[in-house]
Amino acid sequence: MTQNRIQTDRDVVSELTTGRLSVYLRCLSYLQSLHQETVSSAELAARFHLNSAQIRKDLACFGEFGTRGVGYNVSQLKEHLIRELGIDRSRKVIIAGAGNLGMALADYRGFNDNGFHIAALLDVDPAKIGRISRTGIPVLPYSDVKRIVEEQNVEIGIIAVPADAAQDVYDALVASGLSAILNFAPVQLRTNEKVKLKSVDLRINLELLSFYLKGVEDGTA
Amino acid sequence: MTQNRIQTDRDVVSELTTGRLSVYLRCLSYLQSLHQETVSSAELAARFHLNSAQIRKDLACFGEFGTRGVGYNVSQLKEHLIRELGIDRSRKVIIAGAGNLGMALADYRGFNDNGFHIAALLDVDPAKIGRISRTGIPVLPYSDVKRIVEEQNVEIGIIAVPADAAQDVYDALVASGLSAILNFAPVQLRTNEKVKLKSVDLRINLELLSFYLKGVEDGTA
Repeated sequence: MTQNRIQTDRDVVSELTTGRLSVYLRCLSYLQSLHQETVSSAELAARFHLNSAQIRKDLACFGEFGTRGVGYNVSQLKEHLIRELGIDRSRKVIIAGAGNLGMALADYRGFNDNGFHIAALLDVDPAKIGRISRTGIPVLPYSDVKRIVEEQNVEIGIIAVPADAAQDVYDALVASGLSAILNFAPVQLRTNEKVKLKSVDLRINLELLSFYLKGVEDGTA
Repeated sequence: MTQNRIQTDRDVVSELTTGRLSVYLRCLSYLQSLHQETVSSAELAARFHLNSAQIRKDLACFGEFGTRGVGYNVSQLKEHLIRELGIDRSRKVIIAGAGNLGMALADYRGFNDNGFHIAALLDVDPAKIGRISRTGIPVLPYSDVKRIVEEQNVEIGIIAVPADAAQDVYDALVASGLSAILNFAPVQLRTNEKVKLKSVDLRINLELLSFYLKGVEDGTA
């Protein structure tokens, strides 16, 4: 069963919460690198320009890690967020498309460590198959996608192919048994409801900057 | 004057609004491609899984484009959003770094049309200088950044260099007179308050999918 859809409001809410947990995790890792042992929501808020009420609300959902007047234990809270985000285990990832974007993502810091392991890049171009990325990710034949996903227990697929190939690749990734897909192709996909899809629209970032520049020009920023 | 900072709450609010305007624009472009002339906030909400009250609130800020019982004029509202986002003119962009990521961004659909024009890729590697991307963007010497920005009135710079070079490139882009910078390097930059910075952390997208997968495993998704 397929359904045409753009990102829903519920997706946005869930993504916002998850995004904040990711931000808290980065803040805590930074504090840990400074050997700081405890932190209050007020300090987190002031230091990283966040909202302290929002922090307490977000973290309250996950049980009690704060002590009144003392704050949170940095390493305990960090470990807890890592578990909540499900990155306390290693999830296998494959990237469909070994062009510039696929190769860049394969070597992107944070895509192949601390919870994620990129098993392979996949491509149909015989000239690319057999190559490895700068950090050592192999390019394998796209036709082997189902075998690779099954043998290596891959959970997440990344679509890094041109727009006109994206739907076929999406369908093939779903058919191979993946549960979650990250799509970089700027195209609206007919999606399977049982597979979580996150589409990244990089142009929105440029529009955000343009909106800022227009505000400066208009004297409203 | 530099300041260490992570994204602030105000940035997030502004980014959320801008992001929604970008989403509305995509919905309206789609309706226009179907030759639909008017749309109500309720239909926009139902069709694209958005929140109708939020739509009315977001669009109310920009004046009156809706008629009770009729809805919005699709092409008028679209043109208005294009003006609000400041993409009714062409803004020049340069990309620092002509590696896999820079080349992918130079050819990324939406980065070089409808309001944005990529003037050049910049690199220090003599082997890359003089090449052109698949869509024809030239790779020019990084040492010419200030001249290119001034001569071509470039407004936006994109950092697509390795993490260890990102701060130097940021400082050079700011010194060359750019007003807005999009950073893809996974590193915390010491920033200039007068220049708008948007950092893209692609790993957050993987963490979002992991959070979903964990929910499925736990039976809470």
